[in-house]
Amino acid sequence: MTPSPALHGPGRASILDGNSFRATDGTVLDPRTSRLVARRSARLGPSYRLFYRDPVEIVRGQGSRVWDASGDEYLDLYNNVPSVGHAHPAIVEAVHRQMATLTTHTRYLHQGILDFSDELVATLDDDDLQVVLVCTGSEANDLALRMGRAVTGGRAWIATREAYHGNTALVSAHSPSLAGFGQLDPTLRIIDPPDTYRAGSPEAAGEAFLAELGRAIAEIEASGDGLAGLIADFSFSSDGIFFGEPGMIAGAADLIHAHGGIVVADEVQPGFARNGDRFWGFQRHGIDADIVTTGKPMGNGYPVAAVIARPDVWDAFHAQGPYFNTFGGNPVAVAAAHAVLRTIESEGLQAHALETGRQFRSALSALAAEHDQIGDVRGAGLYIGVELVTDAASRSPDGEFALTVVEALRRRRVLTSVCGPHNNVLKLRPPLAFSPGDIPHAVERLALALADARATR
Amino acid sequence: MTPSPALHGPGRASILDGNSFRATDGTVLDPRTSRLVARRSARLGPSYRLFYRDPVEIVRGQGSRVWDASGDEYLDLYNNVPSVGHAHPAIVEAVHRQMATLTTHTRYLHQGILDFSDELVATLDDDDLQVVLVCTGSEANDLALRMGRAVTGGRAWIATREAYHGNTALVSAHSPSLAGFGQLDPTLRIIDPPDTYRAGSPEAAGEAFLAELGRAIAEIEASGDGLAGLIADFSFSSDGIFFGEPGMIAGAADLIHAHGGIVVADEVQPGFARNGDRFWGFQRHGIDADIVTTGKPMGNGYPVAAVIARPDVWDAFHAQGPYFNTFGGNPVAVAAAHAVLRTIESEGLQAHALETGRQFRSALSALAAEHDQIGDVRGAGLYIGVELVTDAASRSPDGEFALTVVEALRRRRVLTSVCGPHNNVLKLRPPLAFSPGDIPHAVERLALALADARATR
Repeated sequence: MTPSPALHGPGRASILDGNSFRATDGTVLDPRTSRLVARRSARLGPSYRLFYRDPVEIVRGQGSRVWDASGDEYLDLYNNVPSVGHAHPAIVEAVHRQMATLTTHTRYLHQGILDFSDELVATLDDDDLQVVLVCTGSEANDLALRMGRAVTGGRAWIATREAYHGNTALVSAHSPSLAGFGQLDPTLRIIDPPDTYRAGSPEAAGEAFLAELGRAIAEIEASGDGLAGLIADFSFSSDGIFFGEPGMIAGAADLIHAHGGIVVADEVQPGFARNGDRFWGFQRHGIDADIVTTGKPMGNGYPVAAVIARPDVWDAFHAQGPYFNTFGGNPVAVAAAHAVLRTIESEGLQAHALETGRQFRSALSALAAEHDQIGDVRGAGLYIGVELVTDAASRSPDGEFALTVVEALRRRRVLTSVCGPHNNVLKLRPPLAFSPGDIPHAVERLALALADARATR
Repeated sequence: MTPSPALHGPGRASILDGNSFRATDGTVLDPRTSRLVARRSARLGPSYRLFYRDPVEIVRGQGSRVWDASGDEYLDLYNNVPSVGHAHPAIVEAVHRQMATLTTHTRYLHQGILDFSDELVATLDDDDLQVVLVCTGSEANDLALRMGRAVTGGRAWIATREAYHGNTALVSAHSPSLAGFGQLDPTLRIIDPPDTYRAGSPEAAGEAFLAELGRAIAEIEASGDGLAGLIADFSFSSDGIFFGEPGMIAGAADLIHAHGGIVVADEVQPGFARNGDRFWGFQRHGIDADIVTTGKPMGNGYPVAAVIARPDVWDAFHAQGPYFNTFGGNPVAVAAAHAVLRTIESEGLQAHALETGRQFRSALSALAAEHDQIGDVRGAGLYIGVELVTDAASRSPDGEFALTVVEALRRRRVLTSVCGPHNNVLKLRPPLAFSPGDIPHAVERLALALADARATR
């Protein structure tokens, strides 16, 4: 609402300025890459952006590793879609078995969706919750925004400054990261995330966030738009990854509820055991979410997503018309998602994320002590932000340096990317197959990449 | 614009009155079905509707057949998602191979999406077309509507009376079949489809459709909303399946273009060789579509969909902001879609649909000659509508009879459903694995079901 000029003023980077290939860069590509880039440019719509100034052609993956077309191996520190590991055999096998048996839709009875939905709800704290399976996080959030409007009668949503909630018309209009393209809903109110790096303390970050929320609610109430609620990824991934201390923003839901709004927890990024503390990101803060949406990590790459809510919320939406999703909840999607849940359980991936993430952050913090440009190492479980700044004293974001580090890491065969309003936070979000044994390799490469990046300044 | 009272007045059936289970019906279910229905009701959102008063639990499929939990075999005359056949081994194998190798996203280079997109565009008449892969027909149409608005600067779309274009907020608002729930976009104009059964001749049906279109355009121009264009399934599936004579509505695109609008061909149902004449439905009429969307049949059940358009249309949209789809165009989705294209080619499924459909319609027409309540048998390839009426002379829709026939067919182990504003048109849209050998079985069961239905009146 009252953005810090240093962080959110004219210096805010466009989403288009991030980690992406630009033909105009003049980067010299090898002949095969050059041919593929030219074919993409001719045949695919212009929206297809490639990562890296020197794009990578990935042809194979296993666990936490992928290989490019030349056979070179990369450590994947970025991708949460293959959430339990690239080409995880349990999910490959479950999908194969079900595809060879039956793919149909939810207008016929099938036991699989019921067994799975029971287990999915068991990760939450209310056994009455109801599930609708869709195909993508965008579809899930599109539905959630309409449900919130139906149940409250209000129109206006609140979202955080760099949030990205998906690609449909409605969800794009509620994704502040797309600001500047003229598509945002005029009733959307944008608030700053709890910037734990600059607030001084977790308490101060939480208080600032609640103050932002209060101001947005007041503005909506003054406008007459009617409060629908708050939609947020409570790990604030796109905003720069601010997990913070558990409970730090616990009051957010109470505040929204007190004003008649509802809370949508967008778990497309933090959910599915990654944060280590709890299965879902919003649970870390004890937030009383009314609707939970998920997508990316749910099927280890198979397009499956979900909306979970109390029956009264579903009923309010259903009163406004029917909803059907052809591919949503088909037996193969369910088999994939069920296999992911079982793998998280059988491999103990939540505890693994907690402990491995702790070790990884500890090693990164040791590296930070030697590098003045690593301003902050933060996160929860295997979702870590490394904020790069001009110097630790000023805490000024250095997005150009971060992009150079990302590119250097790519040359050193480690995949990651950036987030935050200045593209200056390294986003470390590996498949959960990432193991303690990968940490020395990751940290060594990051140290080398930091040196590379400084050398090219 | 000026609906026939007999067809589109107060008697119009709600989308909720169609083929679906209602707990209040009092149908006695066997214990297993009863348990599954109760579990669904408790655990899944209320939007999940089941087909049939006596729902079917399907556990396995192969080719044109599926099996229920008791081991009973059904002929599937309804499902186009398993477009080339339930559990087709070529698609199962292609997905398995790619899943075991790599599932990632389009921000890394991958040759598969380029090879596939080239082949997809080769089914169209313009080699310059560009492709964006998404996950569902709803996502495809959501994108297409925004592209149309971007390229024309207009807001108002025209759609046909019972059209259903998908489930996102924007697309629901442009799906007249959802009328009555207060969600339709106020700028949407609704026109009647070319009702070849009642118009007297294909020419008259085509002329009436163009007149409807002209009136809608005039109304939009008078309103100042600005014409975006026409979005239509040119086989008018949800409207009752009116393929009509090739070229019958060829002038539609010219009319829209003359007024500055664009044409979106929603090929989620008629595309992918099903109509037998051409690969795509709109091609049968020689319609100059600006955007083509597809979904359901594209991956034989794997969630994959596409938007295809000229570069100038993509550029206009892209100027309004970036677009990314996490699961869209991932290597597994591409492998599935590529395998479907290759199977259509290697099994000659377009010619198969043409010839098998001709034989099927011929046999159905012979049955119609003996049944006064079969008013019309129509369609193209393996997409056939059988319109049930009170009597052939009046041509009055008999939706209740049609639903009773559908239920009788289900008891006789043939799956289908209904469409049209009165739910009185049997929708025969089998997997393309349906063969000439299946025809006698299908027709015999339909004859028995008609007798069953008459007996229960």
